[in-house]
Amino acid sequence: MSGRKSAFPMVPMHDAIATILREASALAAAVQNERVPLAQSVGRTIAHDIKAPGNLPPFRASVMDGYAVVSADGPGDYPMVAKALAGSGASVDAKLLPGQLAYITTGAPVPDGADAVVKIEDTEELPEDACGGVRVHICVRGEVKPGTAVRAVGSDIAEGEVVLRAGQLVGASEVGLLASVGSATAPVLRRPRVAVMSTGDELVDPSAPELGPAQIRDSNRAMLLAMAAECGCEVLDLGIVTDQERLLEETMARAVASADVVITSGGVSMGNRDLVKPLLAKLGTIHFGRLCMKPGKPTTFATLEGAEDKKVLFFALPGNPVSAFVTFHLCVVPALRRLRGMAPESCTYPTLPAVIKAPMRLDSVRPEYHRVLASVDPLTTTPSILAVSTGKQTSCRLLSARAANGLIYVPKGTGILEAGSVQELTLFGELLPPAE
Amino acid sequence: MSGRKSAFPMVPMHDAIATILREASALAAAVQNERVPLAQSVGRTIAHDIKAPGNLPPFRASVMDGYAVVSADGPGDYPMVAKALAGSGASVDAKLLPGQLAYITTGAPVPDGADAVVKIEDTEELPEDACGGVRVHICVRGEVKPGTAVRAVGSDIAEGEVVLRAGQLVGASEVGLLASVGSATAPVLRRPRVAVMSTGDELVDPSAPELGPAQIRDSNRAMLLAMAAECGCEVLDLGIVTDQERLLEETMARAVASADVVITSGGVSMGNRDLVKPLLAKLGTIHFGRLCMKPGKPTTFATLEGAEDKKVLFFALPGNPVSAFVTFHLCVVPALRRLRGMAPESCTYPTLPAVIKAPMRLDSVRPEYHRVLASVDPLTTTPSILAVSTGKQTSCRLLSARAANGLIYVPKGTGILEAGSVQELTLFGELLPPAE
Repeated sequence: MSGRKSAFPMVPMHDAIATILREASALAAAVQNERVPLAQSVGRTIAHDIKAPGNLPPFRASVMDGYAVVSADGPGDYPMVAKALAGSGASVDAKLLPGQLAYITTGAPVPDGADAVVKIEDTEELPEDACGGVRVHICVRGEVKPGTAVRAVGSDIAEGEVVLRAGQLVGASEVGLLASVGSATAPVLRRPRVAVMSTGDELVDPSAPELGPAQIRDSNRAMLLAMAAECGCEVLDLGIVTDQERLLEETMARAVASADVVITSGGVSMGNRDLVKPLLAKLGTIHFGRLCMKPGKPTTFATLEGAEDKKVLFFALPGNPVSAFVTFHLCVVPALRRLRGMAPESCTYPTLPAVIKAPMRLDSVRPEYHRVLASVDPLTTTPSILAVSTGKQTSCRLLSARAANGLIYVPKGTGILEAGSVQELTLFGELLPPAE
Repeated sequence: MSGRKSAFPMVPMHDAIATILREASALAAAVQNERVPLAQSVGRTIAHDIKAPGNLPPFRASVMDGYAVVSADGPGDYPMVAKALAGSGASVDAKLLPGQLAYITTGAPVPDGADAVVKIEDTEELPEDACGGVRVHICVRGEVKPGTAVRAVGSDIAEGEVVLRAGQLVGASEVGLLASVGSATAPVLRRPRVAVMSTGDELVDPSAPELGPAQIRDSNRAMLLAMAAECGCEVLDLGIVTDQERLLEETMARAVASADVVITSGGVSMGNRDLVKPLLAKLGTIHFGRLCMKPGKPTTFATLEGAEDKKVLFFALPGNPVSAFVTFHLCVVPALRRLRGMAPESCTYPTLPAVIKAPMRLDSVRPEYHRVLASVDPLTTTPSILAVSTGKQTSCRLLSARAANGLIYVPKGTGILEAGSVQELTLFGELLPPAE
């Protein structure tokens, strides 16, 4: 039987996250690059600065549908001598002399000689002249300013301008920017590889038709795989490992050989079948073995030697599903984001003040992260976020994480936090609309 | 040449979104269901209530590693008569009499007769007795309360309890809940099918090695496809369509026959090659043809008859990439979310007050949605969000959408919004960490 008291001090969350980011940063520097097609670049991180190979627009382009004019001509009636249509190479050859104008569509090259575009709403087409020519009345009040409705060459993106910096996360607008500068592929960081396994003799796969006596279904693995995938990682499902030391050690070795980050759940409490911590101590370095928080006290973080002398981050999360859920958000997400190339300060979720709707009980030993539904508060504006508990917070009750989008930090202490008081919210999902 | 003034009134955004949600709701009712493997259920919407087929835990389970006791026995020294290990069927047969205890691990069934678990830290193993038996000292102060550290049958999830409701979006915790009740597959709504095309003779594919005169690269299509995919939709890329009426009509017909939502960009302004609106008027019903906002005034929303008499939502977005980006967020996202089964009030992004860092100029005709980087403000707490402009807001400058996570609503008017004033922020991305 293992020791009766944990050998590990309870580490404050702030220190734990600093440790995790330090170790993840050391690894992040070695992450390789790859090129992926544009459509697959969303959610990836740009590997190196991308410069525009040319100007956008590459020619003086009309902002409007209307008439390209010589601005000095001012309002009046002028003959239309050309049509400049978007995409038409012919438009490029058009040339205006003073006293002439050209019909032009949005995005078409402004003909040489013209220096402004008057929008169609400010013009009138006149009856044909004697020779069948079109004349147009420019009915702008006052003068036509040079440059009106003309995009200068390179005014949107200048040749050589950095359009995306190394470390930039690719979203839809970044895809658009890459497309606009002719990048059909994007240089991105390789996705972190995350291996997930569950430990415990009591676990069976969710697909098992029947439960034996003393068995429950393994909910953590599917959940943690989903969380790692949502974090933009490549995931590796290592299944359920029973509480046998040799099997566990073999599976851990396989995980460490093929992944950047290994996540286990279960096997980290004080029982004689809790084999994960002793194995981590044997195979690598345990940076912390307990956290001063709930739910998730037994959470353990270690680094192990992986393939090619590369360090691997190892998170041994508690088996209780809520503990696994909360500690993944608070401890694992920062590491995965760091490995994805995000700056350290962006690796943790945003925290902001929120009003709690009902009282919350304090724990005298550990601060607690209370799962909540955070919504925009229609009643107050200071702060404007309302946090409603998801109900009974027992660490085995995964229903307390259902639909949750945030965690309220409940400091350790005695008594309660009053309803209506302002507390720190860690926001990991989209804010909900105002509650009824 | 088309008319010189638009036939369409500028519709206020509020009315436009109500119209879109009304039409999307009519369609949403007819969305079919399908079953997908658990790992593919993330981001999908649950099609019907899912009830737990059994209790969780299915047996009285220990919360701790320690000793199962008869609570009435209280502190003292007792013989250990059994070991109840998690996952071991043998544990289920154990039975305690008063004056006995059993070693137990977290998650193991509590033996019959026992009604509490004392955690290992509160016990001491005593020297072996004369017969080699193990005796354990229970050193709890005061009494052992019945039920301590024992999870009652069904206390996490009761048999028949609804674990996920129809309409619930599946995230990681919901995957865990499905797994915990033995659902290896999930009944979800079919994903909306979204077809995207770009229109314009000036456009070439981003992969084109060289630009011809008067040509630019098509950035909208890749961007809009990425946005639709991020919204959980199945996407269909219909390419670039040149400004030829017959070709455009054919492509539109093909899109409408195969998609729930069709998105075009370009071809909606006032030029004689702007064919989309006239075609929509011919083929379906235009609900609005201009929006009172910028960037995105020419945005058009129509419904057309699709396959099997089903209505199809048609968004004709402006060709300027920023206009397409902003109007997708504000107009298309609510429709896609509605079709995904989200409640109408959750279909638009959350809006909340934010402090603007620099002044913003008002437009006298239309309200504007100014792209910003919204961060948690370390300086104030009322409100706690700071919005920093992404720079020059011209609608062709997609760099103004780079890294943007929100839109500040700038009402129409004269003069400026003062730096430091509180404005409405539409938040479409994660809040950034406090800026330096």
